[in-house]
Amino acid sequence: MDPKLGRMASALLVLLLLLEGGMFSSSQPSGLLGEVFQYIDVHQDDFVQTLKEWVAIESNSVQPEPRFRQELFRMMGLAADKLRRLGASVDSVDVGHQQLPDGQTLPIPPIVLAELGNDPKKPTVCFYGHLDVQPARPEDGWLTNPYTLTEVDGKLYGRGATDNKGPVLAWIHAVSAFKALDQDLPVNIKFIIEGMEEAGSVALEELVHREKDRFFSSVEYIVISDNLWISQRKPALTYGTRGNSYFTVEVKCRDQDFHSGTFGGILHEPMADLVALLGSLVDSSGHILIPGIYDHVAPLTEEEKKLYEAIDLDLGEYRNSSQVEKFLFDTKEEVLMHLWRYPSLSIHGIEGAYDEPGMKTVIPGRVIGKFSIRLVPHMNMSVVEKQVVQHLQDVFSRRNSSNKMAVSMTLGLHPWIADINDNQYLAAKRAIRTVFGTDPDMIRDGSTIPIAKIFQEILQKSVMMLPLGAVDDGEHSQNEKINRWNYIEGSKLFAAFFLEMANLHQ
Amino acid sequence: MDPKLGRMASALLVLLLLLEGGMFSSSQPSGLLGEVFQYIDVHQDDFVQTLKEWVAIESNSVQPEPRFRQELFRMMGLAADKLRRLGASVDSVDVGHQQLPDGQTLPIPPIVLAELGNDPKKPTVCFYGHLDVQPARPEDGWLTNPYTLTEVDGKLYGRGATDNKGPVLAWIHAVSAFKALDQDLPVNIKFIIEGMEEAGSVALEELVHREKDRFFSSVEYIVISDNLWISQRKPALTYGTRGNSYFTVEVKCRDQDFHSGTFGGILHEPMADLVALLGSLVDSSGHILIPGIYDHVAPLTEEEKKLYEAIDLDLGEYRNSSQVEKFLFDTKEEVLMHLWRYPSLSIHGIEGAYDEPGMKTVIPGRVIGKFSIRLVPHMNMSVVEKQVVQHLQDVFSRRNSSNKMAVSMTLGLHPWIADINDNQYLAAKRAIRTVFGTDPDMIRDGSTIPIAKIFQEILQKSVMMLPLGAVDDGEHSQNEKINRWNYIEGSKLFAAFFLEMANLHQ
Repeated sequence: MDPKLGRMASALLVLLLLLEGGMFSSSQPSGLLGEVFQYIDVHQDDFVQTLKEWVAIESNSVQPEPRFRQELFRMMGLAADKLRRLGASVDSVDVGHQQLPDGQTLPIPPIVLAELGNDPKKPTVCFYGHLDVQPARPEDGWLTNPYTLTEVDGKLYGRGATDNKGPVLAWIHAVSAFKALDQDLPVNIKFIIEGMEEAGSVALEELVHREKDRFFSSVEYIVISDNLWISQRKPALTYGTRGNSYFTVEVKCRDQDFHSGTFGGILHEPMADLVALLGSLVDSSGHILIPGIYDHVAPLTEEEKKLYEAIDLDLGEYRNSSQVEKFLFDTKEEVLMHLWRYPSLSIHGIEGAYDEPGMKTVIPGRVIGKFSIRLVPHMNMSVVEKQVVQHLQDVFSRRNSSNKMAVSMTLGLHPWIADINDNQYLAAKRAIRTVFGTDPDMIRDGSTIPIAKIFQEILQKSVMMLPLGAVDDGEHSQNEKINRWNYIEGSKLFAAFFLEMANLHQ
Repeated sequence: MDPKLGRMASALLVLLLLLEGGMFSSSQPSGLLGEVFQYIDVHQDDFVQTLKEWVAIESNSVQPEPRFRQELFRMMGLAADKLRRLGASVDSVDVGHQQLPDGQTLPIPPIVLAELGNDPKKPTVCFYGHLDVQPARPEDGWLTNPYTLTEVDGKLYGRGATDNKGPVLAWIHAVSAFKALDQDLPVNIKFIIEGMEEAGSVALEELVHREKDRFFSSVEYIVISDNLWISQRKPALTYGTRGNSYFTVEVKCRDQDFHSGTFGGILHEPMADLVALLGSLVDSSGHILIPGIYDHVAPLTEEEKKLYEAIDLDLGEYRNSSQVEKFLFDTKEEVLMHLWRYPSLSIHGIEGAYDEPGMKTVIPGRVIGKFSIRLVPHMNMSVVEKQVVQHLQDVFSRRNSSNKMAVSMTLGLHPWIADINDNQYLAAKRAIRTVFGTDPDMIRDGSTIPIAKIFQEILQKSVMMLPLGAVDDGEHSQNEKINRWNYIEGSKLFAAFFLEMANLHQ
């Protein structure tokens, strides 16, 4: 489809929604905000072009390969330049090297700290974002090249489009609109942008500690825009996220593989052990089988229960947009609770076994299973670690296998919960009403954005998650996208939020 | 280590063994055979160089990629040239195309048919070999480049060195020695060499059918040298092989992957289903759990039992050379029986899950488990197929999963058993005594060489497997090798076998 047609179609859709009234009843505001909105609308093709340039960079932080690291450095350099051209003072902080389990050392991409304005009469809002991405290979099932942003029907497909390059750019566009119109920014703005989020935000926590009394001393509010709405069209505000503890379990007979004809029948095969270990973790109803794992999960109160009932979620539509035939649960409330307030366990894959198309008659000699548990308040990570290790040791010892088993928790990220009566939640609600003409869904996020918890714990500042992406954006998946509409209206939302924050501060 | 030193060391070892007497008490024979042996000894470096050139070709038939197919065509062309220069009449038979499951079509490398001599007074021996190899990637744990034949301590490391390029060349060298010495070949020789063995000998069976009354009409004996001894130093003769039925089981929720934060807790995760399915196949003692699978396994007779007792196998040494801490069984007899006359089930791996180093928080949307069952007399392949499908359907239906499961048998190869009182077994025993000064171990092979069964069934001719490689050669594994000693003495063995066959024929 001609991208111009796509934009026309999406403009038409916006128009229809405006005319329709009801839920999306906002009209173009007058005054400064109106000018800002107009500026953003007029420049939307430039904004898409910039996103295209950023998506083109394969800034994969998950696979520890030097070529990806080079791309990450290039990505962070580009972001620093962009912020400098906006008039920000920019500091690209060298945060040293990363030690990999195999002894290899790789440089960590710099963390960009930037600031615009330091008027003591204005509130200071710090925006956090990341520019690294999950791996994506065209052969995994992408319909377009993951590193060539491609617009189809108003959807901008590309790795990192919604997670998190698009939202970072939307915030920058909001600032640039005020600048282009020669207007003072309503708030002091700071940026902290990293390149290792998908790999567990290596080195970020240490930097936040170090900058607590310097860069962050004047910061009052922190905004993160790294998750999704739970609807395709209705905005949301997020007040909690699950944590994550990622485990590897290695079973080893020897380093080399075996021929299944020459050795099949006389070995304790590592894959048989591993499959039994992984099969002992969760039952077919999604219930985690590790003893004690639910002990510290916060009990469900009647008050909390009502929160889920108020959420506007059409389960059928959600299922359709997810292309899932059937969920484990049949009611909206159960589905939301199992995504947000109960732990879950997912098996991600196996390293070291035969994983390619075709047939190979191999007995893998050493295999590594990978799974993770999404943590919720008030699970304790080190308790969870002990429970997992103990459980796997129990299962393994019952097998009487002569292989060696080693369990390790390779990543541990705490869950996070915010106070939704804070000023910036109020300002964001108002901004959402202005741009989208509706109140947001008040939601949690089942995935882990560790930085929320880090900011809250270390800085003791208010943290808010203000997502821009639609529920079907497919972050971490094949054919990730951000809608042009979300990207552009999201830029407006941030601009409106700046003004509302200034208003509340007066 | 300097390769020259390696050769000196290995020559010294041979000398020591010769001096030592006892088990390896042969001396250089006189007459024609002595000249042939001397010729082979003198030209051994040339023979290693030719093997190096053949190993350098990445003739991978397992992964259906056009670039590998090109290499296979190049490999078969090189072999045809080599045979032509030996004076053989050579026919490179085009056997058409291969249809892959994804609809793709790839050309099959030609099958080389060659013949040398057609004296009706001599017996006609046909040698079968293959020049395709299993996949090998340097990063899988190879200490040397798998496609650069590298000699260390008399071991020639490289993919295909022992399986099966080295043995094919040893037969060619045996023939070339008679030719170089201007001597008549004691037997008429035919060759059938293919390039698709590792992919299930696609198109070979059809060709054998077609050539039954032409190329094969004069053939009385078929020799295959595509397996290993069960000792590092003592030769063997093989009279049986296991079959193999290879299965894939696909579990699919949707084609795309999911983010484990956004969807973890509400899905029937395909990996949880697959791990349960694979975990239901075999218990920790190696016993296959598929109902009925042992029903048709031949009962063990007292007579057969004695065969295993006679085998010269030091279980401790075998375990050490295999780098395995403990086998499933503690006696030589039990180990041999579970490798040769009982079925085994190995889980090879999973396609579609996360298989790379590092962490990825993905819920794979569609995964394919791969496993195979080594078949023994008198298991029936189509019965096994039905049992496997029924079992997996039963396990899956008990899970009440909303995912789709599909089981398919992608390869089925029958087991094979030979008559060990045949002429060529007798000739081979004598030749082994001449070259190695010992009687061979009379063994079966746990792996599958389907061509043995094909020749036996279609041509009704005597089939013998005469292995050259040592037990620790690591076929299909990382760091595959053939010992220089086995390669060179193996060339002599074939030459001696030609003469013994001629003697028996008189």
